[in-house]
Amino acid sequence: MSHNTFGHLFRVTTWGESHGPALGAVVDGCPPRIAISEAEIQAWMDKRKPGTSRFTTQRREPDEVRILSGVLPQEDGTLLTTGTPIALEIQNVDQRSKDYGDIKDRYRPGHADFTYDLKYGIRDYRGGGRSSARETAARVAAGAIARKVVPGMSVRGALVQIGPHKIDRSRWNWNEVDQNPFFCPDAQTATVWEEYLDGIRKAGSSAGAVIEVIAEGVPAGLGAPVYAKLDQDIASLLMSINAVKGVEIGEGFDAAALTGEENADEMRMGNDGKPLFLSNHAGGILGGISTGQPIVARFAVKPTSSILTTRRSITAQGEEVDVMTKGRHDPCVGIRAVPIGEAMVACAIADHYLRHRGQNG
Amino acid sequence: MSHNTFGHLFRVTTWGESHGPALGAVVDGCPPRIAISEAEIQAWMDKRKPGTSRFTTQRREPDEVRILSGVLPQEDGTLLTTGTPIALEIQNVDQRSKDYGDIKDRYRPGHADFTYDLKYGIRDYRGGGRSSARETAARVAAGAIARKVVPGMSVRGALVQIGPHKIDRSRWNWNEVDQNPFFCPDAQTATVWEEYLDGIRKAGSSAGAVIEVIAEGVPAGLGAPVYAKLDQDIASLLMSINAVKGVEIGEGFDAAALTGEENADEMRMGNDGKPLFLSNHAGGILGGISTGQPIVARFAVKPTSSILTTRRSITAQGEEVDVMTKGRHDPCVGIRAVPIGEAMVACAIADHYLRHRGQNG
Amino acid sequence: MSHNTFGHLFRVTTWGESHGPALGAVVDGCPPRIAISEAEIQAWMDKRKPGTSRFTTQRREPDEVRILSGVLPQEDGTLLTTGTPIALEIQNVDQRSKDYGDIKDRYRPGHADFTYDLKYGIRDYRGGGRSSARETAARVAAGAIARKVVPGMSVRGALVQIGPHKIDRSRWNWNEVDQNPFFCPDAQTATVWEEYLDGIRKAGSSAGAVIEVIAEGVPAGLGAPVYAKLDQDIASLLMSINAVKGVEIGEGFDAAALTGEENADEMRMGNDGKPLFLSNHAGGILGGISTGQPIVARFAVKPTSSILTTRRSITAQGEEVDVMTKGRHDPCVGIRAVPIGEAMVACAIADHYLRHRGQNG
Amino acid sequence: MSHNTFGHLFRVTTWGESHGPALGAVVDGCPPRIAISEAEIQAWMDKRKPGTSRFTTQRREPDEVRILSGVLPQEDGTLLTTGTPIALEIQNVDQRSKDYGDIKDRYRPGHADFTYDLKYGIRDYRGGGRSSARETAARVAAGAIARKVVPGMSVRGALVQIGPHKIDRSRWNWNEVDQNPFFCPDAQTATVWEEYLDGIRKAGSSAGAVIEVIAEGVPAGLGAPVYAKLDQDIASLLMSINAVKGVEIGEGFDAAALTGEENADEMRMGNDGKPLFLSNHAGGILGGISTGQPIVARFAVKPTSSILTTRRSITAQGEEVDVMTKGRHDPCVGIRAVPIGEAMVACAIADHYLRHRGQNG
Repeated sequence: MSHNTFGHLFRVTTWGESHGPALGAVVDGCPPRIAISEAEIQAWMDKRKPGTSRFTTQRREPDEVRILSGVLPQEDGTLLTTGTPIALEIQNVDQRSKDYGDIKDRYRPGHADFTYDLKYGIRDYRGGGRSSARETAARVAAGAIARKVVPGMSVRGALVQIGPHKIDRSRWNWNEVDQNPFFCPDAQTATVWEEYLDGIRKAGSSAGAVIEVIAEGVPAGLGAPVYAKLDQDIASLLMSINAVKGVEIGEGFDAAALTGEENADEMRMGNDGKPLFLSNHAGGILGGISTGQPIVARFAVKPTSSILTTRRSITAQGEEVDVMTKGRHDPCVGIRAVPIGEAMVACAIADHYLRHRGQNG
Repeated sequence: MSHNTFGHLFRVTTWGESHGPALGAVVDGCPPRIAISEAEIQAWMDKRKPGTSRFTTQRREPDEVRILSGVLPQEDGTLLTTGTPIALEIQNVDQRSKDYGDIKDRYRPGHADFTYDLKYGIRDYRGGGRSSARETAARVAAGAIARKVVPGMSVRGALVQIGPHKIDRSRWNWNEVDQNPFFCPDAQTATVWEEYLDGIRKAGSSAGAVIEVIAEGVPAGLGAPVYAKLDQDIASLLMSINAVKGVEIGEGFDAAALTGEENADEMRMGNDGKPLFLSNHAGGILGGISTGQPIVARFAVKPTSSILTTRRSITAQGEEVDVMTKGRHDPCVGIRAVPIGEAMVACAIADHYLRHRGQNG
Repeated sequence: MSHNTFGHLFRVTTWGESHGPALGAVVDGCPPRIAISEAEIQAWMDKRKPGTSRFTTQRREPDEVRILSGVLPQEDGTLLTTGTPIALEIQNVDQRSKDYGDIKDRYRPGHADFTYDLKYGIRDYRGGGRSSARETAARVAAGAIARKVVPGMSVRGALVQIGPHKIDRSRWNWNEVDQNPFFCPDAQTATVWEEYLDGIRKAGSSAGAVIEVIAEGVPAGLGAPVYAKLDQDIASLLMSINAVKGVEIGEGFDAAALTGEENADEMRMGNDGKPLFLSNHAGGILGGISTGQPIVARFAVKPTSSILTTRRSITAQGEEVDVMTKGRHDPCVGIRAVPIGEAMVACAIADHYLRHRGQNG
Repeated sequence: MSHNTFGHLFRVTTWGESHGPALGAVVDGCPPRIAISEAEIQAWMDKRKPGTSRFTTQRREPDEVRILSGVLPQEDGTLLTTGTPIALEIQNVDQRSKDYGDIKDRYRPGHADFTYDLKYGIRDYRGGGRSSARETAARVAAGAIARKVVPGMSVRGALVQIGPHKIDRSRWNWNEVDQNPFFCPDAQTATVWEEYLDGIRKAGSSAGAVIEVIAEGVPAGLGAPVYAKLDQDIASLLMSINAVKGVEIGEGFDAAALTGEENADEMRMGNDGKPLFLSNHAGGILGGISTGQPIVARFAVKPTSSILTTRRSITAQGEEVDVMTKGRHDPCVGIRAVPIGEAMVACAIADHYLRHRGQNG
């Protein structure tokens, strides 16, 4: 929508860099009288927080979120939204700017350094500025509120691929997701990833990943047939996450190889007298509008660009140099992208929930 | 942005159904003093036009576009844009509503019939309403103008997969694209597709496809680091095309299987004294901002949902029925999606070209 | 919002110049299943139509509106909105371009000619381009639909001042409004205006006016406390009408001279057990949000700039010239602004009605 | 645009209530490499700050603004904007919630209490929530940045009427504006106001006011002919200020009483070879587009609704009560509206400056 805002009725504006005093989000358009708490938001923040295993950056950020506006404390201590903008703020604590000194003028391959300089002619080289993954903390905080907007909605995600290793979907078990450092729903594959990533990490290399997000309890009828398709807005927000290079809904790219008979979801009436889809190739969205089935979205995250291997690059002054990124980084940024992807899907659905209610009453 | 509008400075609003008198687009924000002509727009329209081979619907629509506003005829007959909204209109000519009578209350599997009824409680069953692929004629017309906004930009697309058959990229030849009915850049694969689709067509079945769009001559610096990433807006618009289920930039989902060393594009200074990327895994976009390299986007189109095979479904009244879609349809809607994808990419880039000029002068 | 669009959920995009083949509006976001008809829209169009008395331009435009999309004809012939964009089109019929030849390069004082050239470097001198009052036909058509969006709402306007002559509010009678060519609610003042304007017209001069629009039946709670105040959006849309130089809500500028005791509207409980305001200085809006009382807005229209008196000006080439505007023009454009103002107020309220329903359920 | 955001390319989102921990603004779209400083912003904040004379509220708020993002400190200590969102934050210090306890359920006449409850069903009665004039601190901070966006632009305001007393324009002297507590450009009238307001204050009453804002150095060509008129957006933002009931551009409502000859500004070529307007009835805007002359806007502020006189009202429970607003309030909120109006005008122009550059290069 604008440079740093998304959403139409449920609107989120984020601000802040990795090396300023703080970062945050302003959530505008949240309906009034919804109970929220900082603790509840914090739980989602902690899921994204760095430094929780050897597979994520060792940067230590408590990522404590404060609500600065838009809520009214009730006598029992709960907070109710008031319908006014909710400002969420997270202090930056662990800033080690010195780590970045030697890359001040050097364009790190795969990073936005080069494009930033071209665009703005000025760049906060201390950690990537707005391109830093720290910005995503604000998304997760906003997503925590979005989750409350649609009654009965549940949004959860899992990692389904790291490097060349995909999970075995027949072993999918949501209970496993919190039992390993990868949000992996398949315990056996988690072991494979552990070994694989240890090798990647020791080699100073990095790996890509694919995340799947599933939203259940989404009412049918959300979205619009043309330029406000629900899947379009989900795709837009997932693609807005750092390092994402691809987005799929339902069968995604695999749909290209199917025939019409294989791909279209047949319908029958369920025992409860309600329409029943016999499959969900569509990923819960037909013609841009939710069907009432679970919404299924996937996105691909490229391997972390900060690696300990020397790569050829240039400086801002046009010199050819070799660059090696020191500092603390995730060997696989895809891991921490799981709660971020969930937040984005939740925000897109919350927005369309309000929009649908607006147009259709 | 809104239900039927996209873009921020270069804004396109489309309207019209397949069975009303006409459809069209209003292009707002086009810079003044750009020379355009109806013939030029028509050339792109003709590329999308149905009925040009046995592999596209036999519906006969001349798809003649008229410019109703926003231009000033010069003495030599050329039209110059005036900076005011350009209204483009296309008459609907070949409407056979009778073809649709028997599906009035039957939800065609894979179609938006069911979700439409849930959303609006009313539905123009004569051809899908706004979900009809005819809406894309308006996109192509708008895209023809977008192409003129960015000086030196060229946007072209090709089909790279039909059903399970992918092209051999080593045989990619842009000159082949106009030599076969599939926009296929690989003559050999075109032959495979011809045989494959003849089988599909005769079986009353349908096939999916993958389209690749490449934009060259795009200035570096377009986009924004967070919620107005150039790739995000391209993804959003490609996902807004009917039947699209996946979008990729550069390596896309394949990036997940690469290591950081393999994926990041190294740089050197070119012989012309300008920065040179040694590869383009990024697809021309880093951190949401164009690098100056070709922008590479791909999207997957599901197989046409209208097939001649009987499928299980329900009616609006909750009866279980078997549905077979008669009428004239494309066995592979992906084919005609090529010029549409080009138009969407052109519009996204044009918008960011103006936005960048606005913020950065 | 954008250059040629307004509204957030009820969005209107207009296009077209006075001298192209047609002009129109696209109304996006209208709720589905609302009954409308071309005849109904036409009734409002006719109210704005030129040439109905000697006090409006003698240009003869039937201003017939056609609905091109967004409706579904029912068996009884009525049209129901489908929730998709409603395209409204009006042909331009009576174009006399020759009238404008001699002002091609001459900037008419008070007109947008000079600023247009500065802005765009190109100008459709045949009638003012987008600055032509003909664009307002599209507004009236869109307003006709807006009126149907809010159940029970009635929006009507009247002229309350022409030149120095104000109406006597104690004689306000809505039934008079259609009995004179001025939409004047005070029969006696209408006679004064008639004489005054005859003098103005014969002198080749022109007069300004003030219009008052009153919306009744507007639910309480519409608007927002900060940047989406209902009065703000009404002011914005009234100010967007050609030649408008001032906007007021309720007491307007007169409020500056009142004390707090005089201005604030006291409340009591009504006999119907509902809150009752004892006065309406606020004009139906407090803190940007509707109170349920009638919404009262006024706007001032400057005297028509096209006059038969010679005025000093310059040409596009920088020559000093004397300019006299021939052609057919309204001696008091304020008269025809009544239905336009009504349309703008209706659109603003309809938009906030949907927005409120979206955020607040 | 949205509930708490305004602007299209230069976008401002504000958040915060008078009784939360802080309030602030996020300024998005500011061009990069503009030098700003907290001190500079603070200077404008201090102009709006309460408690500087006996004619403004005795609430003591230091209103210290902090920049939390979007700038890069240079070696010499100056801050340069980076093109990313600028977060501005102001702590709330002097909160006396107890003052508000007895109006928890009582609707203060003239306040938004009643409409808030109707809209949201929940209300932060401690100081008006988002309707509090404290929100305007965030506007002034954002306006300080807007002032830097347009090179050479100067925006300044003055009070021209308090209660029934207007200034004598022949005595207008900008140097006087800082010499009295009223931003009055006419020393003699300032004395009248002082006496008048002392009476008002002692009587526990309040007075309305009219403010005039003049922007000089605004390039010609900013704005758009229809729904993005520069005057429209100025009107919209001025009307969004608390308690504003009317807005005028140039002659404003007085234009209604003029003839076309009197009102239209004639042109000649200046001695510098540039077009010269011989008057500025238009207030610097023709057809919605800036002429290059000073932009002149006025707005009317109603008398403060919080008065010490008992007024009739009702409670949230429907009881009839008498209400007297204790607490600390401005006898004439119009005084402090001067810097707020300046900020709004600066923001509107900055936005159109960037938009024009975007569309027109």
